[in-house]
Parts: sequence; C-alpha cells; structure tokens
Amino acid sequence: MSERKILTDYVYKMVASLVQAGVQHVVVSPGSRSTPLAYAFASTKQLTMYRQVDERAAAFFALGIAKATTKPVVLLCTSGTAAANYYPAIVEASYARVPLIVITADRPHELREVGAPQAINQTNLYGAHVKWSVDFPLADGAAPTLPFIERHIARAVAIATSAPFGPVHLNVPFREPLLIDFREELPTVTFKQSHIGQLTPPKAAQVELASILRDTKKGFVVVGELPLGTDLTIMWEFVRQLKWPIIVESLSNMRTSVPNDCLPYVMTTYDAIMKNDDFKALVVPETVLRLGAQPVSKFMMQFITKSQPQAYIVVDEDPMFRDSTGVSTHFLHASIGEWLVQLDLAETALEAAYLAEWQDANDIALEYIEHYTEGAIDEGAMVSRLLEIIPNGSDIFVSSSMPIRDIDTFLMATSKDIRIFANRGANGIDGVVSTAMGLSQGNNRETYLLIGDLAFLHDVNGLIASRYQACNMTIIVMNNDGGGIFSYLPQSTVEAHYEDLFGTPTALEFQDIARMYNMDYICVEDIAQLVPKFNTLRKNPLRLIEIFTNREENVYAHRALWNRINAGLKAWQS
Amino acid sequence: MSERKILTDYVYKMVASLVQAGVQHVVVSPGSRSTPLAYAFASTKQLTMYRQVDERAAAFFALGIAKATTKPVVLLCTSGTAAANYYPAIVEASYARVPLIVITADRPHELREVGAPQAINQTNLYGAHVKWSVDFPLADGAAPTLPFIERHIARAVAIATSAPFGPVHLNVPFREPLLIDFREELPTVTFKQSHIGQLTPPKAAQVELASILRDTKKGFVVVGELPLGTDLTIMWEFVRQLKWPIIVESLSNMRTSVPNDCLPYVMTTYDAIMKNDDFKALVVPETVLRLGAQPVSKFMMQFITKSQPQAYIVVDEDPMFRDSTGVSTHFLHASIGEWLVQLDLAETALEAAYLAEWQDANDIALEYIEHYTEGAIDEGAMVSRLLEIIPNGSDIFVSSSMPIRDIDTFLMATSKDIRIFANRGANGIDGVVSTAMGLSQGNNRETYLLIGDLAFLHDVNGLIASRYQACNMTIIVMNNDGGGIFSYLPQSTVEAHYEDLFGTPTALEFQDIARMYNMDYICVEDIAQLVPKFNTLRKNPLRLIEIFTNREENVYAHRALWNRINAGLKAWQS
Repeated sequence: MSERKILTDYVYKMVASLVQAGVQHVVVSPGSRSTPLAYAFASTKQLTMYRQVDERAAAFFALGIAKATTKPVVLLCTSGTAAANYYPAIVEASYARVPLIVITADRPHELREVGAPQAINQTNLYGAHVKWSVDFPLADGAAPTLPFIERHIARAVAIATSAPFGPVHLNVPFREPLLIDFREELPTVTFKQSHIGQLTPPKAAQVELASILRDTKKGFVVVGELPLGTDLTIMWEFVRQLKWPIIVESLSNMRTSVPNDCLPYVMTTYDAIMKNDDFKALVVPETVLRLGAQPVSKFMMQFITKSQPQAYIVVDEDPMFRDSTGVSTHFLHASIGEWLVQLDLAETALEAAYLAEWQDANDIALEYIEHYTEGAIDEGAMVSRLLEIIPNGSDIFVSSSMPIRDIDTFLMATSKDIRIFANRGANGIDGVVSTAMGLSQGNNRETYLLIGDLAFLHDVNGLIASRYQACNMTIIVMNNDGGGIFSYLPQSTVEAHYEDLFGTPTALEFQDIARMYNMDYICVEDIAQLVPKFNTLRKNPLRLIEIFTNREENVYAHRALWNRINAGLKAWQS
Repeated sequence: MSERKILTDYVYKMVASLVQAGVQHVVVSPGSRSTPLAYAFASTKQLTMYRQVDERAAAFFALGIAKATTKPVVLLCTSGTAAANYYPAIVEASYARVPLIVITADRPHELREVGAPQAINQTNLYGAHVKWSVDFPLADGAAPTLPFIERHIARAVAIATSAPFGPVHLNVPFREPLLIDFREELPTVTFKQSHIGQLTPPKAAQVELASILRDTKKGFVVVGELPLGTDLTIMWEFVRQLKWPIIVESLSNMRTSVPNDCLPYVMTTYDAIMKNDDFKALVVPETVLRLGAQPVSKFMMQFITKSQPQAYIVVDEDPMFRDSTGVSTHFLHASIGEWLVQLDLAETALEAAYLAEWQDANDIALEYIEHYTEGAIDEGAMVSRLLEIIPNGSDIFVSSSMPIRDIDTFLMATSKDIRIFANRGANGIDGVVSTAMGLSQGNNRETYLLIGDLAFLHDVNGLIASRYQACNMTIIVMNNDGGGIFSYLPQSTVEAHYEDLFGTPTALEFQDIARMYNMDYICVEDIAQLVPKFNTLRKNPLRLIEIFTNREENVYAHRALWNRINAGLKAWQS
C-alpha cells in the first residue's frame, strides 16, 4: 500500500471516529505538520471547521463553542510552541469542566529531541491539566493501527465527556510527505459507541442527606455555576419542594427565566447583605447545601466559614470536591440532577421566619439596587442599565475581575430570558474575547460581551476569528484605564508603586481596533448617552461599545451603595 | 514576630539572593497574589523592573532582554492561567537555551485544588520544559525558611546559567494578608556565590578530533546560532587556522563584523548553491563539523544526510545533542569556545581545489544575489534593500517563517556591524514582537524587527510594553496577507482548501495599530518608495513600516533567482 494511502486511511479513520463519537465542531490553526488532519477535517461535511491563527485565542474560541453546545470540540494545531499556546485555555477547561479534544500534530520519533526545527517535547505537554494524554502511533499501515485509532478516539471523547467534563490531549505524529487524497465518504468505524455512565449517588446519601434537609430549621442553598448541560427544570422543582432561600450566583443561570412560583426563594443580593453583621447574626444556618462551583462572593464564603454549620453539604461530580472553606461536613460525589430527581423531601421543616429574614433583607437591598442608576455614572450603573436594554433571548459573556462582580450585584431575579456565561474555572482575564466569540458561534442567540479594558486588550486577537468566519457580537468594554479590581483590595491603601503594579494604566482607547476590524463603534462617557447610542448600533455584525469610567468613582459609588443598603438593613432591624 | 514582618523578610531575602546571583532585570505582570514580591522588586534600586499585562508577551519580552544581556531575567506573575500564558516563551527558552527565572505566585496549600478562585495546580506546571521546578515554602518564620530561600535562589540561577542555559521555575505561595513594609536596604545574604563550571572537553577529544580535522582533504564547517555569550574572536581565530569553507547561518552572527582575513572562508549562499546537484557532487565532504544549533537551510541538512561524511562531528553543550540527520559519527559534549581555544591544528590538509570550488560557487551566487534588487519587487528584494539601509551598529530581530529565510538568503558576509537575532529554539511565530521589544530594552543599539503579517498579528500585544516603558524600535511588517511560507511547500500544489488552511488571509492592514500605539507609520508598495519613505521615519520612538507584497510574486521571484544561480553554476561548471 502506498504511503499516501496509509496516511489517508489514518486521518479519515480519526475523523470518522470523532464524528461517530459526536464531535461536530473543529477549530484549526494553520500549520504544516498538521496538514493531513487539517485536510481531512476541511473535507468532511459532517464537521464545521473554524479557524484562528493565534492558538491561544483558538483554544478559548473552542472553549466557547463547547460551552454553548455542551458538546466536545476538537482543536488542531501544528507542532512546536503553537501547542504551548493552548495551555491557558486547557487549564481553564480543566477547572471549568469543559470537554475539549486537543490534537497536537508532532514530528515523528526520529525528529524529536534532536534539534529538528519546530519540534518540542509534546508528550504530556499539558501535565496535570488534561484528563488524559496519549501519544498516537505513526501512520504505518500496521494491522493494529486503525483499530487503535478507533478505540483511542472513542476513549478520548468518552473521558472528556464523562463527569466531570474536561480536556484530553492527543499527540499525533506525522512523517513527510504530508499530502493525502481527499475522500467524499468517511470510512466505516467498527467500534460502535461508548456508553457513558451517570454519576448516581449512593442510596445512603438519599436517606441521610434528605433527612438532614427535611429536619433543618435554618438553612439555605448556594448555587454556583452548574455543570454544562444541567437541566434547570430539575433545579426549579427542587426549589419548589425545599422552600429554602436559594442563594444563586449569576452564573448558575437561575436568576433569569425564573418560574414565577420560584421567585420568592431566589436571593440575589447576598454580596450586599452579607456585609451587614446584624443580618448575618440573624441567619446563621444549621445547614448549608452547596451545588455547583464556588460562588464569586467572598463575603458569602466567609460567612459560611465563620458560621460552621452543623451540616455543610457539598455536591460535586469530581471526587476532588471543591470546598475552600474547610468547614464542609458532608461530601456527595454525584451528578446534581441525578441526586435531586431521586431526593424525597416530602415536608420540610424550615422556619417561616428564617425564610422571611432573607426575603426582607433581599427586598431591601433590591430596592436600593433598582434605584441605583438614578444619577449614578459609574460602571455599576452602566451594567445595570445594560441589563435592562439587552434584549430578551440574549447571552452575555462576562469577563472575570470586575464585570462578573457587577453582574452579580445588578442582575436581579427575573423571568427575562438572558443567559450569563464566564470563564470561572481559573477566573483568568485571558482569552475572554475568544471564548465569547466561540459562544456566539455555538448558539443561535444574540451575544454580548462585557469586559474591562485590560482583559479586552489581553485577548484583542480574539477578533481575528472574525476574519475567518462570520461573527456576530456586541462587545462592551468598560474602559477605566487599568486594573479596576485592585481599587477594592488592600493594595489600594498603599500609595507607593500602586499605579505601577496594580493600576497599570495603558491610556489606550479602542476606536482604532474597531476601525481595523470593521466594527460599529460608539463611545459612552455619560449614562444618558448609553441608550440612544446603543440603539444606533446595527450596521456591522461586530459592534464595540466603549464606556469610559473612572476607577476611583467606581469604588466610591459601589461603597456608597453598600453603605446605603447597610443603613437600610439597620433601619429595618431596629 | 508579626506576620507582616515575616512576609517582608521573606520577599526581601528572595530579592537580595537574586541580586547577589547577578539578576538585574525583572518583568512583572499585574496581579494580586504576587503582591509581596512585586512590591519588593519595585522598591529595590538594584533591579530594573519592566511591566507587561499580557503574560504571554511578558515572557517573550523577558526572553528578549536575556538574549540581549546574556544574563538571567526574572519573570513574575500571579496565580492561575496567568502562569500558563508563560508556557510558549518557556518552551522557546528551553530550546533556545536562554536563562529565565520564572516565578509564579501561588495560593497557600489550603487553597489548592479546593475550587478556590484563581487557583490552579502550579507544581511542575511547565513539565519537561524547565531545567528545574521547585515549590517554595510559605513565609512561616521558621528557622530553615530564609536559609532555604538563599540557597534555592542561588541554585535556581546557577541551574539557569550553567551550560546549556535554560528556564527554571519557582512556585511561591503567599497567604493573605499580602502587604509588606518597604525597605530601603536589602538584607545580608550569607550564601556567597555559586561557581559555575565550564564544560571542558575531555583530552581524548582534543587529540582524536584535531587529527580528523588536520587530515581532512575535503571538509567544511557549519555554524548555526551559537550559545548566548559565545566569544566570536575565538571563532574567527579558528577560521584562520582551519582555512576550511565555513558555512555560516545568519544567526551565528558570523556574517557581519567579519575580519578581512576571514572573508574568503565565509560562505553565505549555501541554500542557493545546495540546490545544484553538480556542485553538490563536487563538494561531497569527508568531514563536516557542526557548531551551534542546526541551521535554517533544509537543503544543507539534506546534503549532509545524503553525503554521509566519514566524520560528522557535532559539538553541543547538551548531552542530548542536536542532530536530526541521524548520520553524525562523533559527538563532543563541550563548550565550543573551551574546545576551540585548546585545539591544536598546526597544519591542515584541506585541498586548495576543494576550498576553491566553494569560493567560486559562492561568488557566482553572490553576483546574482547582489544584483537581485534591480527591478525586483518582492519580499526578498525589499529585505536586500533594507540590509543596505539599516545603519551600522544596529540589531535586527527576525521572525521565524519567511523573514529568517530571506535574511539567510540576502545577508552577505560583510564587515558592517549588524547583529541578527531570532527565536529559533522552537521556530515559532509567536511572541516575536515581544522578544524584539525585550531585545531593544536589553541593549543600547538601534533595533529593527523584520516580521510577516501573521506573526505581527499573533503578538500585536507585544506593543503594550511600550505603554509601560520607553521603547525604541522600527518594525518592518512584510504584509503578504497570510502565510507566505506555505507557498514554498508541497501543500501549495493542492488547490483544494489551500487558502482556508494555509494561505489564511485576514485582509488586515496595520495603520490602525500604528495610530493606536502612537507609532510613525509608512506603507511601501514599491521598492522605489522604500528608501525615501524610510528616511522620513524619525518622529516617534516606535515606527512601523508596512510593506505590501504578494505571496505568488514572492515565490516566483525567489524561484527565478534560484534558477538564475543554478544556470550560472552550470555555465561555470561547463
């Protein structure tokens, strides 16, 4: 058999196995060594191929598609540092539990570690941050090779998509020549299907944990970002049965599309009301149940730590469960949905007064938050107004650092259908533009990105994706010229070196970027301009709204709000 | 002792130990967890601190400083994906053998792997691509901690700066609170100094290899990029003694500042003349000596492989020696300089006719190359003209892909003082702008960057560095709208998917980038415009020359040159 036919068989077998395992989206960065697979991807009708030359951005773009589709997404790059550029997004995917199939083309074994160009040691390149890493054989025409491909591809996808989801790495060497014959039809795959098990909780958990929940007089649930693809109808049914205060972080997507009968239980203002010591004393819990990732709010986590509940139950799909408070008392390794559908709560014993304390405090805080934009000019006010005008049926991708905190403060429980996404696996400000671009590709909803100036600059290359595929997105940059979050930290009390190390202003503005990428552009310096200018944005598929704010003003306004809420709570208590 | 004093002692001990070990340059990216060390760096007069918010760019920037200064450079970032962004530059530093001291701030042990924000598993984060990775203890005030710091910092710098140079990783956890007291004076360091050994070749090598070199009738030397800090006077003395043809890659920096009496031996046109089969048949070597990294030219390496010299001697500082041909016969693990100064060549036996063949062929090729620009409009002609007008005393940083090949073709042996640098450890097109910016900071010479449009775009964030420190550099972007190098590869013969996978045009131009970063800007579409426009560039410290070329024309012109040289060589042989 000719070398070329062997290579062709090899790569189409990979593609056929990926397609059979359910892969639909592939993100390719240009390169030579990856040529055989790139050809096979490009020529396969069952796959949608996306492209991005910056591999760091490409990997975050794939992450965004996977978040939108809840399906595994394939990445492909050439050998060398290209592969190392994937690392930040792989780390994020690992902690955010997003299924990525990372394929790095490699040199054949005789060109490894001998000073050959563009050859680096790629085995286990991503260390502890992938669920599995495997070095593929060369396309050698040996009998075991094609069966190896079928089963290792199936295994890779099964690993990536079993709970908890995560990235896997396939390192695939190719020897020159790299050309293949294009084929119309994919080859047959004899391996049929990986049946992926559900993480079912043990019977004992149903009995013991249900009885704790039933008997609790003072308790609340904290819901952070939920595993990809979690069925929210199960969550809402649980809320109805339990009738506890449910502290929902915006990333849980349980603040929006809230069923009317669940609205009384949804608490969104915890970050504000947890700053009031008297309120905290009133609501010390016996039991806390935490579902999903840890929430953004440091105050909430400190409250739980200090309260030391008799039962602090953490449910997680990973046996390495997530609890940084160190006060958890029960851990359940299970799929949240699987557990909840089987949970028999019958009657719960929560004191009506306990729920009422939460509801009243939440209502008071909401009152101040709702009226916040009146006369305010800071980022919080802008975010609050944006949440009003972003249309029903949209998705908002929110950067780490201040934007996610602003959303957490100003997004109130609503029946409006907006979904919130963010990279909260490792909370980086890298790759945010790309992830949002990927998200916008993977769903059919209008997509907005809310981001600060440093994060936007960090991943400005995310915009390159728009040169290779039609992208439709509105980017809202809060330009406070530097790192706004540090103004809230103790570092801001030390004047020495502050702007050098933390403020780090660049004095850059982004109109030129908008021009370069052919985006609609408006700049907003006053909240009164926001709505009228926003309504003019309809010419181009990419739109940039640059909102100029001031770091000091933002802190001042935030603190003033917290103080008003605190005063309101004090008046209520007395 | 107060926590704050313990933390202050800890970080200033780190800084004092770094300073004592010879560190002068530190590149910091903003973040919270790294605060204690960032403060200590910022407040230490003995250090120059640079800043860059994009950690990928920051690491390449540090690489550039290290290349310019030949000294270890410290990197500091916060915990999380920030650290993963360093990876591409670390891989490059590993293969290019550049000393980097990579310091990643980490969460304390109780916040690792428990879902705490911005906490990822950072132990051994860079896998096989650092020479050493060590997890530091917390600032605990225990008696062994400060002595640990002194010796582990000394050890880290010693490892990074012993042959072969390379990156090391220190993972340093900090527990809140993160504020320190500023100190004017650094503490005493009791550990005095690491004495770093020279890699001295064994006696047997002197005798055996010298006799091979002396007795060789047909042989040549290939010199690639040499280890950082190699003393070129030793190299030139060797050239004078050996009197062999010396095939010098541009990155060896032995094409420029060539002593007059060495000029006859320096061969620069190997990539062109190695395409002529008759010439190759004339110069089949008995012996090849290779010093430094493998050269860019694939044709040269293929010639060596096919020739299978009786002696093919590779000298390398790494016992994992670099030879991808698989035909080496001798390996010497030694510092090149140490070996050459002791080498006793006395009389060498090389046939005068053998040297003359090389000289004649090289002269013929040079004749065509010198006249190449007449009437030509392609990238090669532009590069050739640029090499004429870039002033004496300049450094040129050259991107991987086509620019390094153009330089290798058009830079001829000259007494002019220009130095050539590139990232050829892994030959990536990532981080090129940043490395050049770092280079320009680390030396006192005028710096030029020669780069293609995709590489420029890939690391456009390298320009952010100019917002934090004064940067002076001229960037020449060869904008052929896509990946020009693929036009030279077999992939270009396959029309299907070519532009999608390899051409990957973005249709982007860079005038907006120039405006955003306040750079002088000129665009050149015709070689006649180059010199007059070039001479107008003197307003701003950053200058951008965008040269529009055409991928197809470039290939056509290159091939035409090769054909002319080939025809010239044929005429000479007959």
